[in-house]
Amino acid sequence: MKMHNFCAGPSILPKVVTEQLARSVVDHEGMGLSLLELSHRSDTFVKIISEAKSLLLELMGLDAEEYETLYLTGGASTQFYQVPFNLLNEGQTAAYLDTGRWSAKAIKEAKHFGNVAIVGSAANSGYDHIPKADFSRLEEPPAYLHITTNNTVSGSQIHEQISAPCPIVADMSSDILSKPMGDLSGHGLIYAGAQKNIGPAGTTIVIVKKSLLGKVDRAIPTMIDYRTHVKNLMFNTPPVISIYGCLLTLRWVKEQGLEQIQKNNAAKAALLYEEIDRNPLFRALVKEGSRSLMNVTFDLVEGYADRSESFLQLAAEAGCMALAGHRSVGGFRASLYNALPLESVAALVEVMQAFTAKHG
Amino acid sequence: MKMHNFCAGPSILPKVVTEQLARSVVDHEGMGLSLLELSHRSDTFVKIISEAKSLLLELMGLDAEEYETLYLTGGASTQFYQVPFNLLNEGQTAAYLDTGRWSAKAIKEAKHFGNVAIVGSAANSGYDHIPKADFSRLEEPPAYLHITTNNTVSGSQIHEQISAPCPIVADMSSDILSKPMGDLSGHGLIYAGAQKNIGPAGTTIVIVKKSLLGKVDRAIPTMIDYRTHVKNLMFNTPPVISIYGCLLTLRWVKEQGLEQIQKNNAAKAALLYEEIDRNPLFRALVKEGSRSLMNVTFDLVEGYADRSESFLQLAAEAGCMALAGHRSVGGFRASLYNALPLESVAALVEVMQAFTAKHG
Repeated sequence: MKMHNFCAGPSILPKVVTEQLARSVVDHEGMGLSLLELSHRSDTFVKIISEAKSLLLELMGLDAEEYETLYLTGGASTQFYQVPFNLLNEGQTAAYLDTGRWSAKAIKEAKHFGNVAIVGSAANSGYDHIPKADFSRLEEPPAYLHITTNNTVSGSQIHEQISAPCPIVADMSSDILSKPMGDLSGHGLIYAGAQKNIGPAGTTIVIVKKSLLGKVDRAIPTMIDYRTHVKNLMFNTPPVISIYGCLLTLRWVKEQGLEQIQKNNAAKAALLYEEIDRNPLFRALVKEGSRSLMNVTFDLVEGYADRSESFLQLAAEAGCMALAGHRSVGGFRASLYNALPLESVAALVEVMQAFTAKHG
Repeated sequence: MKMHNFCAGPSILPKVVTEQLARSVVDHEGMGLSLLELSHRSDTFVKIISEAKSLLLELMGLDAEEYETLYLTGGASTQFYQVPFNLLNEGQTAAYLDTGRWSAKAIKEAKHFGNVAIVGSAANSGYDHIPKADFSRLEEPPAYLHITTNNTVSGSQIHEQISAPCPIVADMSSDILSKPMGDLSGHGLIYAGAQKNIGPAGTTIVIVKKSLLGKVDRAIPTMIDYRTHVKNLMFNTPPVISIYGCLLTLRWVKEQGLEQIQKNNAAKAALLYEEIDRNPLFRALVKEGSRSLMNVTFDLVEGYADRSESFLQLAAEAGCMALAGHRSVGGFRASLYNALPLESVAALVEVMQAFTAKHG
């Protein structure tokens, strides 16, 4: 049976990526050695990480003079404290836009280091929309504004460019490179766990404006200091296989082109949201205008809540997997990352129609 | 040509491991999906990480009631600050045995958090031996004693059990599971980058005595707090592929048996050190009694220094790769991790003899 993988992350990867990765795990480019057995200081891997760095910057449309790309580890969850450790002085204020579960986690960690001003929050309405950022109560510009561009759990996404009186720090874990990235010049730092649109789990991308670093008073342990990784191509052994997976995925992204990827993603999301809005048994969880193109959250309408399992069962029989909503939200979630084909969404829509024909 | 991989890490892995990994990267156990595309919360991966945790503890001979195994990221370099962040109060003293480059790095990071007492150092003699630990100058027992059991760069290894008036924290990155681990009950925390004897790069093993945690006064950011990872099987997305690689390697270790692995490692090291001591053109860099069975460091004798490149060239022609010493030491280094067969060492010895026949 053809599987339709709606996993929220780790998630579907282009087949050319997994196939090339598998070949390299056995014998990398005919060297007679697995990529896993090579020194990270070998010419082979130095070329891989160097290309992964420059290609990411190119696809983001950022300038290598101003910005540095890092392949770190520890996930976005590590960035929640690494960002304020490096960018927020004690006594200083950072602004946070509270758009979902991950924003809230970032806010919690920032409080270890300085003051946090919540300049907008959708917490009271179950994160069903993107709130406006309001800086009017702040007496002076904050150290930075932290945003989460796409909210994997609740299923909302920032669609309008946010302007701020300070550098923007953006957690782009779940929508990075899902479209042309536009003007990022207001961004001081961008981070993303790789395991959605960028590659396999195991590495975290950080893109940092170099001029922002070195401005806090506290001493920073070496590994958590961004400057360590800006200065050293590899300060210590990086997650070799994950970085190679990212490089292969980035090459695939470049080959597709971000405009084409955006078109595909828009078509997939439109197909699914149209069915959700049309089908009398389903409802979307996020308001129009804030809906995510990457993670579509929906549920059965009132009175049908006890049939969730039947729906998931029917979906599974059609090869549609990983559709249960996040445990904190419930309902359903279909993640439509770059590598998911339109036919998978079509298969899901068919399942929804079959379900309604049976239960409606 | 058969390759003989003397890489210091990432390094040689058992062939059964790379072959199974490659299969899973394409299609994990016939599921029709790559292991890289599966949610870390899937039953499939929960089973993998659970077995990886319990098998490691079993091989270490430690009790699951007392100790917890964690698969973290960031390498041993992250442990250099995570250990004192969690275990060393401000004003308190931690003891460090300075046995090499990595010990020195660990010492540097600990100073961010409390006082450091160096209870023994071999820095003044180029780390050519393991110094004794002397606690007599300390007025009270330190928070912990930090040791590096094997020194990958200089090529020394602790062969005698160290006793301390406090819990031992051990960086075992380069000799963990290279032999039966003996009595580890005095250890409060053990850590190791995976990329030598445990698996591919990308994950760091931490084994922690649970009763040691929660005793420092400072607030600890969530991700760097060991308790977060003790409480949650997976707090965030872990490096899936690296952990699966560890599980496969640990299964291989169990199948071989640690006694047999120790015998093999002893035979490999003996063969190489005998040649170094016997051959008039070579000399060992570490004193007898402190020599590492994992990383054998050696050089040409005086007067032959300008022929280093010729030796490396001759070795390369015989398929013996990655023999250049660490850039801070020079000379040669042959890493003889568990997966390296005796025949590779024999091939290297042949090269040394051929070199001497030509240049001696």
